[in-house]
Amino acid sequence: MLDLRPVGYVIGLLTATLGALMLLPLAVDLLAGSANWRAFAGAAAITFCCGLFTAIACRNAISGGLDLRQSFVLTTGVWVVLPLFAALPFVTGAPGLSGTDAVFEAMSGLTTTGTTVITGLDALPMGINLWRAMLNWLGGLGIVIVALIFLPVMKVGGMQFFRTEGFDTLGKVLPRALDISKALLSIYLVMTLGCALAYRAFGMETFEAVIHALSALSTGGFSNRDTSFTEFAVPLHYITVVAMILSTLPFIRFIQLFRGEVKPLWQDLQVRAYLRWTLYAIIMVLAWRVIRDAQPFWPALHQSVFNVVSIFSGTGLLSGDPGQWGPLPFMVLLIVGFIGGCTSSTGCSVKVFRYLIMFRAITTQIRRLLQPAAVHPLRLQGRRVEQEVISSVIVFFTLFIATFAVLAIALSMTGLQPRTALTAAWTAIADIGPVWGPEVGPTGAVGGFPDPAKWIMTIGMLLGRLELVSVYVLFTIRFWAR
Amino acid sequence: MLDLRPVGYVIGLLTATLGALMLLPLAVDLLAGSANWRAFAGAAAITFCCGLFTAIACRNAISGGLDLRQSFVLTTGVWVVLPLFAALPFVTGAPGLSGTDAVFEAMSGLTTTGTTVITGLDALPMGINLWRAMLNWLGGLGIVIVALIFLPVMKVGGMQFFRTEGFDTLGKVLPRALDISKALLSIYLVMTLGCALAYRAFGMETFEAVIHALSALSTGGFSNRDTSFTEFAVPLHYITVVAMILSTLPFIRFIQLFRGEVKPLWQDLQVRAYLRWTLYAIIMVLAWRVIRDAQPFWPALHQSVFNVVSIFSGTGLLSGDPGQWGPLPFMVLLIVGFIGGCTSSTGCSVKVFRYLIMFRAITTQIRRLLQPAAVHPLRLQGRRVEQEVISSVIVFFTLFIATFAVLAIALSMTGLQPRTALTAAWTAIADIGPVWGPEVGPTGAVGGFPDPAKWIMTIGMLLGRLELVSVYVLFTIRFWAR
Ligand SMILES: [K+]
Ligand SMILES: [K+]
Repeated sequence: MLDLRPVGYVIGLLTATLGALMLLPLAVDLLAGSANWRAFAGAAAITFCCGLFTAIACRNAISGGLDLRQSFVLTTGVWVVLPLFAALPFVTGAPGLSGTDAVFEAMSGLTTTGTTVITGLDALPMGINLWRAMLNWLGGLGIVIVALIFLPVMKVGGMQFFRTEGFDTLGKVLPRALDISKALLSIYLVMTLGCALAYRAFGMETFEAVIHALSALSTGGFSNRDTSFTEFAVPLHYITVVAMILSTLPFIRFIQLFRGEVKPLWQDLQVRAYLRWTLYAIIMVLAWRVIRDAQPFWPALHQSVFNVVSIFSGTGLLSGDPGQWGPLPFMVLLIVGFIGGCTSSTGCSVKVFRYLIMFRAITTQIRRLLQPAAVHPLRLQGRRVEQEVISSVIVFFTLFIATFAVLAIALSMTGLQPRTALTAAWTAIADIGPVWGPEVGPTGAVGGFPDPAKWIMTIGMLLGRLELVSVYVLFTIRFWAR
Repeated sequence: MLDLRPVGYVIGLLTATLGALMLLPLAVDLLAGSANWRAFAGAAAITFCCGLFTAIACRNAISGGLDLRQSFVLTTGVWVVLPLFAALPFVTGAPGLSGTDAVFEAMSGLTTTGTTVITGLDALPMGINLWRAMLNWLGGLGIVIVALIFLPVMKVGGMQFFRTEGFDTLGKVLPRALDISKALLSIYLVMTLGCALAYRAFGMETFEAVIHALSALSTGGFSNRDTSFTEFAVPLHYITVVAMILSTLPFIRFIQLFRGEVKPLWQDLQVRAYLRWTLYAIIMVLAWRVIRDAQPFWPALHQSVFNVVSIFSGTGLLSGDPGQWGPLPFMVLLIVGFIGGCTSSTGCSVKVFRYLIMFRAITTQIRRLLQPAAVHPLRLQGRRVEQEVISSVIVFFTLFIATFAVLAIALSMTGLQPRTALTAAWTAIADIGPVWGPEVGPTGAVGGFPDPAKWIMTIGMLLGRLELVSVYVLFTIRFWAR
């Protein structure tokens, strides 16, 4: 029998922490004189108590650490349970969302998707907007920890390639998780603070600086404005661009940088490919805007750079409406969204590393056609890539495309138009943010979608964020059979 | 040095044959009293002579058969050279197409895509419409031969799985090609004749019966009517459905059936999956039409069955305009188009067999997460699937998606709207036929596309038809280096 108590213990602690963190927006609303602090008070009490009781009930079983199956239940469990509690303030408080909408908003926050159901963000109490941005930020932190520690051990989607990197010996999962989490937390906090201060220095208001630092560095994309980033000054755009690029680099490199090792970051093939591809995408979109659409160069430049980087990284903050920029920019944005960031970043989607492996697998395949007898080992970053990793990567990609197709079909069944269904499936599985189509409100909010569509997107966000395989495995009989 | 003379010899013979075949539409136009027979006379003379001279010039080098690299050059060479000659009558004769349009039309014919640049098909001389349908039919025959004989030897996209099937000993490629081609030709002729007679029996005019038998059994999809199949009677729809299904079954099974073996067809997992998925797709589209759109059941039935089978098989004949049926039918059609027929049929796209292998690879992967030590061999149809086959299949799929994305981007660059660019890329790479979008004419003709878009689609059709890898390999330095 699978012992779920260690899982319950960790989820309990995380839930209690989430409850405690609700005191921040509570304090903000209290200081701002908004009566909405009561929503957070109730939610915090419920969340904290539920979490604490669960942790206490399960506390004696954790000493053995987590085994493989428990790790699988834990990762999915966290992203199923926490959004339910995180949704509470949205129901009891200011926007007064329905249960479906609230869970959607919380899942969108914690999976760093950033699609919102709310129209009229600017009029919300500050606490609610802070809570939304905090969910982005916490989700980003959580996912980096999962990508650094859990996925390699769980061998999800070829992530076992990164098992030995940085952390050579692999003990039990949990103690390492705490160590690495601490290092990560410091780096993440410093970057966020730096971003917020830079915003402030270039004239953004403190509250908005905090919100956007939280949501840009987590590639989350929630904004406190209906117009997203459109109305902000040009320098603020470029600060965000830097923040979004940082958040899609492999965080393992930052830990190494922290230890004084610059070389690994500099020589990382994944980082180089990511920056190169970003450049190509920007050039294509910019050329279209300037040459074909005859837009003035400088505004076109900062908007093209901003939106390409935003979608490529999966942040989803927008400047203007790039969905209306015409065929080529639309297609480029769709495709960079399907690439996504580097591994162990807060970015989502298929990831640069997997494309690098797939491109090499294709080259190897073509070589093999001509020299069937010869052995063609696939190498990346000076290391040999095992066949098992290659298979995992390509199977992941196949599963990604298949899941995308199923989501698109399912969304179409709810009656959404093809353009809406396709971009909604895309934004959900790659945790990007924007949805384009006739059913989307003028501010980009999807509140008008039918409820089944919202649930399908909620499931899609969860699947995409946890790299599909780690969720699907829970639905096999074999998993529960032993 | 690569000796290209054997390749030249075969292509020369095939070209000469193509020239000789132009006498058929010539005769039809002559009998119908159309002056357009002159276009065929000139084209036939040029084509026949060019082909004959090439064959004679290369004739002494063929005795050794073809080696691997020559096979690659041959398959691509055939589909590059023949469309150029097949295009001649379109330029010199009735529709008076530009060079770009004529090559597009001929390539669309010989790759069994069936997208047309011509508006006003009904008014064309009979010879031209016969020629178009013949190109479909010849392309279909050619591709079955390639799929049965060449691809397994060339190990393209996992086709080596079928190497031992049916033909146990593998000698030199060419002598077997002749034997099998003869058997195939008989079966294909009989099926076409049967289809035409069935059409005739249910009231279709002889000429139209021949045209549609040629284009349905080859999954080509050219029609002599601007309205495609819409105006024909209901029984004729169902005859076409049977023909289209037959043309997507593995032709190897027909050869076995011919020898009296029924079991292989009956037990073929690929066939079963294909029929099952077709049924699911029909049910989804039909339910949408009847329940959501409140269409009367019987017309909805024959139109749904017809269009789903047509797109799934990659035929592309249409009844009504399923592109306007709303989100779910649109999405279902897109996806079945990405599945395609069985291997060694005239169908195109990724193929059912590859999906079966990919689904199993995914299951195996998920099992391996839980039991890393255990060996999980993948089996299909009672036979073990080698790792090499699995890799080839999944790499093929990745390459397919990547090529689709590149085509879509390239088409967007020519200024086509996203919906048009996406469906054009889809129809080109999977050789289906219809394109949907604002730039497409009311009859579905793509004559109004910018020339670069037509060339991109022409290249896409060629790539898709020859399963990508067999073309790409020609662009590697290594191929030509030895
Ligand atoms: K996002
Ligand atoms: K076709």
